[in-house]
Amino acid sequence: MDLHILDHRLRVTSICKNGLVNFTHPLIKLIFLRNRARCKFFSLTETPENYTVVLDEEGFKELQPSEHLLVESSVWLPLNVVSNGNSSSSSQAVGVTKIAKSVIAPLAQQHVSVFMLSTYQTDFILVREKDLAVVINTLEEEFNIYREVGGEYSAVLSQDVHNGFQKNGKEAPQLTVHPLLIPQNQFCVMSLDPDTLPAIATTLIDVLFYSNSPKEGALPSQDLDCIKFFSFSLIDGYVSLVMDTEAQRQFPADLLFTSSSRELWRMVRIGGQPLGFDECGIVAQISQPLADNDISAYYISTFSFDHALVPEEDIVSVTEMLRQHRKEPAC
Amino acid sequence: MDLHILDHRLRVTSICKNGLVNFTHPLIKLIFLRNRARCKFFSLTETPENYTVVLDEEGFKELQPSEHLLVESSVWLPLNVVSNGNSSSSSQAVGVTKIAKSVIAPLAQQHVSVFMLSTYQTDFILVREKDLAVVINTLEEEFNIYREVGGEYSAVLSQDVHNGFQKNGKEAPQLTVHPLLIPQNQFCVMSLDPDTLPAIATTLIDVLFYSNSPKEGALPSQDLDCIKFFSFSLIDGYVSLVMDTEAQRQFPADLLFTSSSRELWRMVRIGGQPLGFDECGIVAQISQPLADNDISAYYISTFSFDHALVPEEDIVSVTEMLRQHRKEPAC
Repeated sequence: MDLHILDHRLRVTSICKNGLVNFTHPLIKLIFLRNRARCKFFSLTETPENYTVVLDEEGFKELQPSEHLLVESSVWLPLNVVSNGNSSSSSQAVGVTKIAKSVIAPLAQQHVSVFMLSTYQTDFILVREKDLAVVINTLEEEFNIYREVGGEYSAVLSQDVHNGFQKNGKEAPQLTVHPLLIPQNQFCVMSLDPDTLPAIATTLIDVLFYSNSPKEGALPSQDLDCIKFFSFSLIDGYVSLVMDTEAQRQFPADLLFTSSSRELWRMVRIGGQPLGFDECGIVAQISQPLADNDISAYYISTFSFDHALVPEEDIVSVTEMLRQHRKEPAC
Repeated sequence: MDLHILDHRLRVTSICKNGLVNFTHPLIKLIFLRNRARCKFFSLTETPENYTVVLDEEGFKELQPSEHLLVESSVWLPLNVVSNGNSSSSSQAVGVTKIAKSVIAPLAQQHVSVFMLSTYQTDFILVREKDLAVVINTLEEEFNIYREVGGEYSAVLSQDVHNGFQKNGKEAPQLTVHPLLIPQNQFCVMSLDPDTLPAIATTLIDVLFYSNSPKEGALPSQDLDCIKFFSFSLIDGYVSLVMDTEAQRQFPADLLFTSSSRELWRMVRIGGQPLGFDECGIVAQISQPLADNDISAYYISTFSFDHALVPEEDIVSVTEMLRQHRKEPAC
């Protein structure tokens, strides 16, 4: 298999809930006005805690510094595994499950923090730019590694990046067992033709920027077991949307599509306290048992927590499996 | 003819050019999310100086106080002349020309300030709430006057509002002659089905909120004789748009409509220094000679200046006429 290091230098940021109004102008530009913003990698995820915005340096320039904006200090690079037809994997599962053993586990072993961003199209593994030498050294046995520069891919060898490289210690990292939350909402992972984005503009704007103000006549949801989670990304021209079925009903049914009709997903949220960015092995803790059982999973990291999405029919066995694996009750 | 005093209590505000980013969130709500905002009267006009926003009290609540927002201190009420078929006027002209002699001239004579807002559908004459008694007393000879309350119209008689009414002095007001500016752009006055507003959302957002940032690859306009002027209104469910032909080209041609195809208008801007809100007779100075010559005109007041739109084919004669009338050269 091939591993691509994509030509995006990313920043991971968070906008606090009541600060979103101050960022409506740049965010609408980044989402809808591609001819005005040069941003090629943009992702916005709303959770109950905040809005996580991951974007490249061109996009980051659009966000004015503010007390409402937190910025993780590193530059992150997105990695992407490309099956080139020679894969020996017999797995039918999709998402992080396919890369759990080949990418996520080895990086966790080497104490490399990863920030995961699954989309409809693919799974991006974000690593810190300063960890790149360790990443290449760790993954080059399993992968042919290519680095994208200006649209061209060239092979990367470990010795190219060996300068200053110190292989991290071998001792197993001290793993924290984080509490899990399993909300009741059902989620869809969808896409749409980017040319039809204008057709859903007012609905998307409504959901993203105004869903916290009560709609006239609508009763507030009393269902405390449901979680607010909505993710939009526009990466290299591809749109991906993750939303629950309640949000989905607001969109025209003929424009959004999913890989198979009525495919629904349930969420496992990882973390009771905000996870931070330095702990390693969190994704591995979840993706490893899923991979052992060949269960598909999307995985979306945000500024505070991690979120795995598993097929609805597997949620009971996944819950049991994670409890067993962690020897900790899920909350 | 009937005169309606509409059931809207309006505020006239101005957002400075570089302050618009701070108001993107409430303005997009007011324009596109009618089920979230209760505003029934909304108008936004961009000029080179600022953005003039006229809106009812429900809409005004959406605008947070800010150093970027100026608010005229009065409450304004919109008047609307309704032809009931018994009109003796033989004029084919549209716009303020039809009401120049019956409304605008008599109010100017009584020193009542008016703020004009022509739309595709009709012409609103805004008067200060505190001037209402004078207005009714002045216009009741010419009109049957009805006041709208909760959708119902009831006849208003002068004695109903006579309390405290002091007819203004009879001496002719000291008129200032303001310089005129006649830019080269051609304007269109258009409408669209409010249900199709979502279809032009991204274009309208682009033009309203991002037109001051350079488009990638576009050269800045060198034509200093053209003026930035774009007006959008959504009043009682009716949409009206006034824009120049350059802006019009950005919109899909099949959604916007005008009363006759390819009807183009030229602008006369009134005022060299900001006009303020207290001077009376400015509209009358312009509308009177146009009415004498039966020339159609739209008239849009903004926070700083007044703007008359006249048919393109009449601009030469209008320029000459206004120069003659004022015995002052236009600039």
